[in-house]
Amino acid sequence: MGTEFLNIKEVDEAKKIIKDLFNELYPPKSDIVSIEDSYNHVIFKDIISSMDLPPFNRSLMDGFAVKAEDTFGANDEHPKILKCIDSIEAGSYSEKTIEKGECIEISTGAPIPDGADAVAMVEFTERGSAIDEENDIYILKSVAPNQDLALKGSDITKEKTLLKEKTVIGPDKIGVLAAQGIKEVEVYKKPRIAVISTGNELVLENEKNKNGNIEYGKIYDVNSYAITSGAISNGAIAENKGIVKDNYQKLKKQIKNSLEDFDIVICSGGTSAGVGDVLRHVLDEIGKVIMHGISVKPGKPTLVGKVNEKLVIGLPGNPVSALIIFYVFIVPNIRRLSGKGSENIEKTKAILAKRIHSPKGRIHYNLVQLKDGLAYPIVKDSGAITSLAHADGYIKISKTIELVDEGKEVEITLFR
Amino acid sequence: MGTEFLNIKEVDEAKKIIKDLFNELYPPKSDIVSIEDSYNHVIFKDIISSMDLPPFNRSLMDGFAVKAEDTFGANDEHPKILKCIDSIEAGSYSEKTIEKGECIEISTGAPIPDGADAVAMVEFTERGSAIDEENDIYILKSVAPNQDLALKGSDITKEKTLLKEKTVIGPDKIGVLAAQGIKEVEVYKKPRIAVISTGNELVLENEKNKNGNIEYGKIYDVNSYAITSGAISNGAIAENKGIVKDNYQKLKKQIKNSLEDFDIVICSGGTSAGVGDVLRHVLDEIGKVIMHGISVKPGKPTLVGKVNEKLVIGLPGNPVSALIIFYVFIVPNIRRLSGKGSENIEKTKAILAKRIHSPKGRIHYNLVQLKDGLAYPIVKDSGAITSLAHADGYIKISKTIELVDEGKEVEITLFR
Repeated sequence: MGTEFLNIKEVDEAKKIIKDLFNELYPPKSDIVSIEDSYNHVIFKDIISSMDLPPFNRSLMDGFAVKAEDTFGANDEHPKILKCIDSIEAGSYSEKTIEKGECIEISTGAPIPDGADAVAMVEFTERGSAIDEENDIYILKSVAPNQDLALKGSDITKEKTLLKEKTVIGPDKIGVLAAQGIKEVEVYKKPRIAVISTGNELVLENEKNKNGNIEYGKIYDVNSYAITSGAISNGAIAENKGIVKDNYQKLKKQIKNSLEDFDIVICSGGTSAGVGDVLRHVLDEIGKVIMHGISVKPGKPTLVGKVNEKLVIGLPGNPVSALIIFYVFIVPNIRRLSGKGSENIEKTKAILAKRIHSPKGRIHYNLVQLKDGLAYPIVKDSGAITSLAHADGYIKISKTIELVDEGKEVEITLFR
Repeated sequence: MGTEFLNIKEVDEAKKIIKDLFNELYPPKSDIVSIEDSYNHVIFKDIISSMDLPPFNRSLMDGFAVKAEDTFGANDEHPKILKCIDSIEAGSYSEKTIEKGECIEISTGAPIPDGADAVAMVEFTERGSAIDEENDIYILKSVAPNQDLALKGSDITKEKTLLKEKTVIGPDKIGVLAAQGIKEVEVYKKPRIAVISTGNELVLENEKNKNGNIEYGKIYDVNSYAITSGAISNGAIAENKGIVKDNYQKLKKQIKNSLEDFDIVICSGGTSAGVGDVLRHVLDEIGKVIMHGISVKPGKPTLVGKVNEKLVIGLPGNPVSALIIFYVFIVPNIRRLSGKGSENIEKTKAILAKRIHSPKGRIHYNLVQLKDGLAYPIVKDSGAITSLAHADGYIKISKTIELVDEGKEVEITLFR
């Protein structure tokens, strides 16, 4: 009844096999996206500055552009009087050059005119009040050379590294790109993943009978939705291909079709060495089964195959098992491919609220719910949907441990 | 020269004013999205289970559905022999009822037939080998009632709470919704935000002269891109409305137009009590200035106004100031409106790598770069784009502190 598992692998061995396959089959590629669409993408190679910033000597204050030495010794009691010969708002400039004894009114952000080497803040100046003195500016405080201005290129000069490769693009980095007039950016190309659920018991939301119920013996499909969303949120472009019944020809056709447009196919269900084992036979025909069976709870019947130099992954059918196996074995590779880095998977620590019993001899991943700094283990069969409803993530229990005691600190990998 | 600030507010007072305005003007609303599009949305009210899960007594194993009492006392030496009268694959069912001494072959996930109350795993059974005995099943281990099956409704029953309000929808929760055949979900409605940059010095990427350079005195706009992206990543629908020059009529028109389609308008630039102060005058005419000036570094000239019961926010023009003020004062409110919760803003802790001097008398937000668990303060003028290129987030320094020493643990709010 059904096929035996191939030589079952330990978790670390299985991780290495899968990682090596990803590295062999999917060298990182780049893609060009507009900066508006670049949020959460990852920079593929160092971005080099194409211009000096600021692009000109720029005033940092509202006030008067001056020759600093004209102000030396100025104070409230003994102001220096300079003749104002022009006014510059941000965005415009003056063609005049300041000579000794002159100044130009200037706004924050405007270019410093020729001849000036500092800005006297408006707060420390006064304008002559008599009609023929309105261009007499009284400087009430001396300023030093370069005071209150940003020199051209002082922020960054042309041809320096602006943003490093592997930088994840957030709102601040989008601003940095915009500041250089960069419109498009080279980012890690997202892997394209097709997600298929298999199982004669599965139906879609629209397959209801006239009473609004689903047929007896059927259940709604969970995995195609959950895995598609998990793939997208970890950096892939993923498409839910829906359900294929446990039918050899139909599954073969769907996998072949999907491999034309996608880099990776992830199936769930149909991998157990039981009655409905179809995926493995399909892979035996059109490709090669590389691994079938991992010594892990839950998720033992996991399957990895290769068809035309592309990966076909078979996850267990039970939703909890499928999601955990997906996060443990597949997500780190998706993240590496999309540039996000497998090391940045979100984790947190908490104190275990209740003891967990664990089967000796297999690594065990157990769902937990987080509440007030405590991690509550969720102990249900791996088909239970309420497990997922309550779960925030999972913890790993190594294979030599039979019991994790209440009060112990545990590390939780979060479902993101 | 320019307008004086209104009565300048302390940071906590300003936060309260802005929060109260959001609460008054924007009561939370809901929206309906398909479950495929629901990732990272937030559930608006408790979702009630519409069906029992599992929807029938479901086998957890491949094996034989039996009456448990028929197997009592069975072991390798003394197997019990049951007559197999049918076979059920997942997704189908049997119309037969098991009588005493009978069993039905069953797959994982298939419905338990009438008359049966347990499953005997295939591993502990043997099939008769003689031709006329192939329906004789040898049970090698006794099973208890309810063993290896999930009772109808044991996971969740109809009309129980499936997912609580305020749950952030991740891949696992999408799976939970799918399991109940839920196609659409009621989530917090995202606020709609229009983002406008003002300033005569600003240009867009495509405004280059024939040498591929921008005009002297101009700079590329940063804020409209960074603020739009920050609003989207914190739960809003935001649109970059580009640049409006410091022109009274044009700014008024753009704000009025934006208020027709959007809930909130966020401008940057044009708020300083300097030469280019236009936003405040526009708000004086078409609405009301509620607050102008916060005792904070950077970002003092921040402005909050109300037009037709909608908020118009004026951020400073300098990119670093604009982004920090946006994160400190506006992001928590966007997150509350989108259901994400202001308390979930991402923060981390690190050791300060270098001392920071801070102006006494004002709360100071300082950019930091994270590296190997250390927070390196970034000390540049707030127009510096490289500050943003290196920054991971910012720390808050309270107004009575003049110096934060190297080695101190600090909390960093991350730019996400």
